[in-house]
Amino acid sequence: MRYDRTGLEVLDEAECLRLLGSVPVGRIAFTHDALPAVQPVTFVLNGGSVVFRTREGSKLAAATRNAVVAFEVDEFDAATRTGWNVTVVGRARVVTDPDELAELAALDLRPWAPGQRDRYVQISVDLVQGRRIVRRPRD
Amino acid sequence: MRYDRTGLEVLDEAECLRLLGSVPVGRIAFTHDALPAVQPVTFVLNGGSVVFRTREGSKLAAATRNAVVAFEVDEFDAATRTGWNVTVVGRARVVTDPDELAELAALDLRPWAPGQRDRYVQISVDLVQGRRIVRRPRD
Repeated sequence: MRYDRTGLEVLDEAECLRLLGSVPVGRIAFTHDALPAVQPVTFVLNGGSVVFRTREGSKLAAATRNAVVAFEVDEFDAATRTGWNVTVVGRARVVTDPDELAELAALDLRPWAPGQRDRYVQISVDLVQGRRIVRRPRD
Repeated sequence: MRYDRTGLEVLDEAECLRLLGSVPVGRIAFTHDALPAVQPVTFVLNGGSVVFRTREGSKLAAATRNAVVAFEVDEFDAATRTGWNVTVVGRARVVTDPDELAELAALDLRPWAPGQRDRYVQISVDLVQGRRIVRRPRD
């Protein structure tokens, strides 16, 4: 295993992608009105990209129109004080191609939040990195 | 209770601050090398501000030097498909005043991640907002 200079385990790309696919909710970091913003979304991985749904006209729909965003997933356990996080950086784009939309509509991607969310947004996984907190004997 | 246009419950400031103080880990969204970045940190609330520790010379220490950042906490439950999130927007600053540092050193703020993390960073809570997914009868 590889560790960074602070002692966190550095996760390789395969492990990052596996963990990315293991959780239902991630967080998009983007810029809104020149201020940083974070929005959790229910998502799935499809063909190696992150896909989520949002509402037409929403802040998130506007902010992710061909923007570079960060998308983060993690899991932490207070009892053991361990956990991991994976962050993707990629370009978000609204899916408009009818064939692609038909494919995405067939995915099991039901947002937990109520309301109509008919806008599909895809984030390419251009960069992915992750870290894990491991309890080691010397801790 | 108040709902936004998508049907999410809008949390008032008192509830946002209560929830913010109820979890040990939050996520800082910032900009690094002109790209969005997200970093989870162990934190505490102190005097109405978010306080976390990082390593001197770290990406996070550099990125949060008098920068406006977003700080997000959430809790989601896959079984009930419910949850909440709270996001703070505020200015991050490195604490250098000896009296303040002595006060912060007395807090129970032990990072879960290994390594020396002697740099205290404080984020003022300038804006706070939160949403909750509630299962309502019509869902």
